[in-house]
Amino acid sequence: MKGETMEQLRTQLDEINMDLLRLLSRRADIVQRIGRVKQAQGVQRFDPLREKEMLDRIVSANPGPFDDSTIRHLFKQIFQASLQLQEEEKMHLLV
Amino acid sequence: MKGETMEQLRTQLDEINMDLLRLLSRRADIVQRIGRVKQAQGVQRFDPLREKEMLDRIVSANPGPFDDSTIRHLFKQIFQASLQLQEEEKMHLLV
Repeated sequence: MKGETMEQLRTQLDEINMDLLRLLSRRADIVQRIGRVKQAQGVQRFDPLREKEMLDRIVSANPGPFDDSTIRHLFKQIFQASLQLQEEEKMHLLV
Repeated sequence: MKGETMEQLRTQLDEINMDLLRLLSRRADIVQRIGRVKQAQGVQRFDPLREKEMLDRIVSANPGPFDDSTIRHLFKQIFQASLQLQEEEKMHLLV
């Protein structure tokens, strides 16, 4: 780890940003597909128990350096954005 | 993509959650190291221009389905959490 220049660290950061973008987009895609299955089955889209289970599992695997409350906050934002996406799609289907 | 069961989709989601956790943690680790280099150089930690450049690059690569404003929002949350981590570390070093 030692002796890394600022430029090397920033290059790593940029690569991770792109990996995060890819993963977030893949995640959103899967959430949309789950929404479609739920739609077909007539099941409620938002499942607070499932969301709580996911969050607990994520937080229990948190290796740091972010503390658990920060990880919980970031993933809640991700979950919320995904749910909005499902809602928008539902609106389009209804129109 | 067709014929995937809810369980298969949820398994994929759980795997992506763990990948996101790993990436977010690696990212936080790198941001901490950048903070230390800046500290040693006596440079200001928060660089709004660098943050804007990162955001623009991320948004311009956004493949969807999230819209650009959602991606911008999610990454701003990530940036903010990382900056807080740098600040906390700085406080510990000063105490």
